[in-house]
Amino acid sequence: MEKPVGIIMGSQSDWPTMREAAAILDELGVGYEARIVSAHRTPDRLWDYGKTAVARGLRVIIAGAGGAAHLPGMMASKTRVPVIGVPVQTKALSGVDSLYSIVQMPKGYPVATMAIGAAGAANAGLMAAGILAIGDPALAQRLDAWRQALSDSIPQEPKDD
Amino acid sequence: MEKPVGIIMGSQSDWPTMREAAAILDELGVGYEARIVSAHRTPDRLWDYGKTAVARGLRVIIAGAGGAAHLPGMMASKTRVPVIGVPVQTKALSGVDSLYSIVQMPKGYPVATMAIGAAGAANAGLMAAGILAIGDPALAQRLDAWRQALSDSIPQEPKDD
Amino acid sequence: MEKPVGIIMGSQSDWPTMREAAAILDELGVGYEARIVSAHRTPDRLWDYGKTAVARGLRVIIAGAGGAAHLPGMMASKTRVPVIGVPVQTKALSGVDSLYSIVQMPKGYPVATMAIGAAGAANAGLMAAGILAIGDPALAQRLDAWRQALSDSIPQEPKDD
Amino acid sequence: MEKPVGIIMGSQSDWPTMREAAAILDELGVGYEARIVSAHRTPDRLWDYGKTAVARGLRVIIAGAGGAAHLPGMMASKTRVPVIGVPVQTKALSGVDSLYSIVQMPKGYPVATMAIGAAGAANAGLMAAGILAIGDPALAQRLDAWRQALSDSIPQEPKDD
Amino acid sequence: MEKPVGIIMGSQSDWPTMREAAAILDELGVGYEARIVSAHRTPDRLWDYGKTAVARGLRVIIAGAGGAAHLPGMMASKTRVPVIGVPVQTKALSGVDSLYSIVQMPKGYPVATMAIGAAGAANAGLMAAGILAIGDPALAQRLDAWRQALSDSIPQEPKDD
Amino acid sequence: MEKPVGIIMGSQSDWPTMREAAAILDELGVGYEARIVSAHRTPDRLWDYGKTAVARGLRVIIAGAGGAAHLPGMMASKTRVPVIGVPVQTKALSGVDSLYSIVQMPKGYPVATMAIGAAGAANAGLMAAGILAIGDPALAQRLDAWRQALSDSIPQEPKDD
Amino acid sequence: MEKPVGIIMGSQSDWPTMREAAAILDELGVGYEARIVSAHRTPDRLWDYGKTAVARGLRVIIAGAGGAAHLPGMMASKTRVPVIGVPVQTKALSGVDSLYSIVQMPKGYPVATMAIGAAGAANAGLMAAGILAIGDPALAQRLDAWRQALSDSIPQEPKDD
Amino acid sequence: MEKPVGIIMGSQSDWPTMREAAAILDELGVGYEARIVSAHRTPDRLWDYGKTAVARGLRVIIAGAGGAAHLPGMMASKTRVPVIGVPVQTKALSGVDSLYSIVQMPKGYPVATMAIGAAGAANAGLMAAGILAIGDPALAQRLDAWRQALSDSIPQEPKDD
Repeated sequence: MEKPVGIIMGSQSDWPTMREAAAILDELGVGYEARIVSAHRTPDRLWDYGKTAVARGLRVIIAGAGGAAHLPGMMASKTRVPVIGVPVQTKALSGVDSLYSIVQMPKGYPVATMAIGAAGAANAGLMAAGILAIGDPALAQRLDAWRQALSDSIPQEPKDD
Repeated sequence: MEKPVGIIMGSQSDWPTMREAAAILDELGVGYEARIVSAHRTPDRLWDYGKTAVARGLRVIIAGAGGAAHLPGMMASKTRVPVIGVPVQTKALSGVDSLYSIVQMPKGYPVATMAIGAAGAANAGLMAAGILAIGDPALAQRLDAWRQALSDSIPQEPKDD
Repeated sequence: MEKPVGIIMGSQSDWPTMREAAAILDELGVGYEARIVSAHRTPDRLWDYGKTAVARGLRVIIAGAGGAAHLPGMMASKTRVPVIGVPVQTKALSGVDSLYSIVQMPKGYPVATMAIGAAGAANAGLMAAGILAIGDPALAQRLDAWRQALSDSIPQEPKDD
Repeated sequence: MEKPVGIIMGSQSDWPTMREAAAILDELGVGYEARIVSAHRTPDRLWDYGKTAVARGLRVIIAGAGGAAHLPGMMASKTRVPVIGVPVQTKALSGVDSLYSIVQMPKGYPVATMAIGAAGAANAGLMAAGILAIGDPALAQRLDAWRQALSDSIPQEPKDD
Repeated sequence: MEKPVGIIMGSQSDWPTMREAAAILDELGVGYEARIVSAHRTPDRLWDYGKTAVARGLRVIIAGAGGAAHLPGMMASKTRVPVIGVPVQTKALSGVDSLYSIVQMPKGYPVATMAIGAAGAANAGLMAAGILAIGDPALAQRLDAWRQALSDSIPQEPKDD
Repeated sequence: MEKPVGIIMGSQSDWPTMREAAAILDELGVGYEARIVSAHRTPDRLWDYGKTAVARGLRVIIAGAGGAAHLPGMMASKTRVPVIGVPVQTKALSGVDSLYSIVQMPKGYPVATMAIGAAGAANAGLMAAGILAIGDPALAQRLDAWRQALSDSIPQEPKDD
Repeated sequence: MEKPVGIIMGSQSDWPTMREAAAILDELGVGYEARIVSAHRTPDRLWDYGKTAVARGLRVIIAGAGGAAHLPGMMASKTRVPVIGVPVQTKALSGVDSLYSIVQMPKGYPVATMAIGAAGAANAGLMAAGILAIGDPALAQRLDAWRQALSDSIPQEPKDD
Repeated sequence: MEKPVGIIMGSQSDWPTMREAAAILDELGVGYEARIVSAHRTPDRLWDYGKTAVARGLRVIIAGAGGAAHLPGMMASKTRVPVIGVPVQTKALSGVDSLYSIVQMPKGYPVATMAIGAAGAANAGLMAAGILAIGDPALAQRLDAWRQALSDSIPQEPKDD
């Protein structure tokens, strides 16, 4: 299967969050690769990943990181492939540090920032799918169906457990 | 010219921010329409805009709003067209309210959130271009050139004025 | 029994918070219905709920939501029935996101915002009762009694457990 | 004219904010009185105001205050008349102090909190009108018209100035 | 024993925090009374407490409260007896709401605000003692000794457990 | 005149804020000295000030500082004389940094923290007077009169200017 | 072994955080001493430590503290030896209070502030090593090797556990 | 003159802040170079700067940046030369975004973070000097003299202007 989406994260500890993105892509039948690319610990890996992204056929990159979360923004600096950023929740500052480090990018290098944590990671998968669906009618249909199913799943009334 | 991008905003007062997005799209030769669509004051307009977005050929929507900024998220609820959100700076809370209202979307309805204010609006234009460039090699080239020019414009040393 | 109060919430997961509102209405003998109305997942349900609220005899709507909490504000946009908003506590941002998304409404569409979490939900029930009591002397009396009982329940001195 | 709404505020300096509430009530033909009632400087005035509110025919109280904003909450403690709170913007903390002091009320004493500053004050007037409209069909009609006019005033496209 | 210090709190749930103040006063041999005085649930009790404070011989009042913490400020409004405020930690906002509600008092009515939570309550006891020690040389000596003992208790080096 | 109050501040730039404390003491006929004592730039001056405070007859110390505001807390460490802290407003963080640095003292060393900025400085003067009034009936009377005059100065209604 | 690094902390309770600094120095073969020096409880110990730091051969001081964290800044005031500050996480404010108290130093007295909590403490050890490595080629080599090993330890792909 | 310090910044707009660092180094007779190195716009320049820092004789790097401030952290990733970070004040978030992006570095890559804005930049110069002074007794003496002069400049009493 083609792998138009790259899911990258700063460390193994981000995976429990980021696999929510992978799960969505699995549900929607979108191919992806998952890699650990640490902005600080493996900067050259980041460089290579960014420089070869277009040539390798990546069309969307999902990047998750926590704290002084430089990975999404640095990747956005190295490639024109759209970068979706996921702020991972942190212990002391609950991910506000991650959010600010990802979203407050200067003019020139946008990062499409998602909500903090697992919901944000799942939404990163959906955003990637939505972007790819622009040029892929079959995926667009699957995405519409996914959205419809989510909507249909909502009961009319809350229930005591 | 085709208009694949819709720039919408909650009110006329958001235009000084949002025209930064328009300016970037002009620079990159990407067609767009600019509309005022208020989530609260014109909810039916929002509904119509969302429901017809795909059919009208919109491929990316840029939505700017301030305060309890519901426009980007509600638009994301009504269409699978990718929505890029721009938190407009506010008087009391400086746009933190706008940012939280836009970025903290629940699973299912991502908004690609940009930085608060003018830089975020300009980046929304660049993100839209980056998304469209996936399927448009000529635009990809123009975007690469734009990025290179920005990079080349940076002097080696700071100057006293 | 007449049901002048509509309790709506974005998802089943809000019910443990929102049933505090229901409990208060039960105590005060005020009829209500409880519904799940998700701004993002069931926007058309929201639309219908808002458009028919007056005709269905709803006089107050209590709306609880978390994160980018758009339900109370969107409901306020669709009906003149007073909307009371309850910010549900969230994992990463503790409900500050919910609070800002609900309270910072633009001119034209007020949401009567309560405290974050369970206390806010209980107070939403009391606020609804207070509003209905304006035109219902018997309810006014019951509300006065409820308040008096709460006041009378406070011991003079704290106790070690 | 009957005066069902009491607009109270902690000091003369809150009036530039709070008269937005008065202006809305004027537009909607709702009678009101405006009083300075300082929780800290005139606590006995607050007590009297609260204790006589029902007897004097007040049906809604709008209370604006800044900083350690105790007026709305203390008024809610003294009367069952619904209290709408307006957090006035402050110099150092921009009204976050006012907001927290007003909205975070304990179970038993709700304050219907509005947005920080002038938009919140205007919305307090609209919320008061919406509450009174429950029992006043003519006012309900005027409120509907006001809302429709606001909606109709929104142009389709933004304009450069 | 004379009871120059009044420890008051908004509810029984504040006692686990506030008894840290009582414990310090016990250690220093300062008499006190502990009362529940809720600003919102028992406002008349608050009024009476404040109005009779001087006559009853109270020389310092320690007031603890959480959330929209109005007790310390309202007490400061009702009596010239110095009021020490303790922001009790809260669930959603960790006591930032309590802190802002207590410390941001307007000109005229100071509240001597302590740290959030148990350390703040203990310090309220020490501050009360320090104030009383101005006119009580024996207490001053005991306070000096307490401080010296605390200082002497600090080991030179940290230890693994 | 006796000078029971020491007003100290970290730098000349704090004086426009801190002279509000001095003005109140002037109004109430309480003697004071005003000194610049920088925790960081003149730590030995701080040491001396603290060590000699009791012997020099100081009964209350008012300490204002901004940013990493260490002066009030360090003074509280060096003397049992009650220390009242005034968080001076800062450029970037508006005095939240000052507030946290002053109020969050560990057990053992309370600082009676006031509101951020000028209102807090004025209140520091009033708190100092309230503390001294415990043992000075004439001052107590002057303070009561000051409070009464403030209360009497509040008009019943707000005025357009 | 020579001990060029002093690790100081406000209390025993900071040690679980601060020993991360010690662990790094152990790994890098840098000598250190660990001391409890409380700014508030043992101010004279702080004074002595600062005044003798140069003479005792300390070349870098690592200082950890929480809440109103005055230790790093006061130490920076007493010695020209570079001070690295570690904000210890706190219960109510998660270490934002510690961070602001440490980082917002006025001109003249820098504190090299690290991240909140354990990562910050480890980084304090690395920063100390980096500073000492300027004049110690062997240490520089060990530091380079440590960094390389960290980089080499990062796997290419995340793993489910 | 030798240039052991590199002052780098993300853009020309940071220079008014960062020249405070240069001014201090001038005062202390420490050589430096000033360069614009944008993490996002000139990432390869950043790479080169970092990789050659040791070889070029840089012993300390001062890096200033605002918003999603990735420059200091990325430089710390590329060289073992100690990096001092200066959070530049921003329009919407006042530099809290810059502060969090700089200070919250993960284990392995410390950035010695200074206060937000001009004071932080000046302190970066002083910290650099303090670090170099470890191995340069003449500089140590100049730094001691600078500190003494600052201390001596503080008047005993504040003055009305």
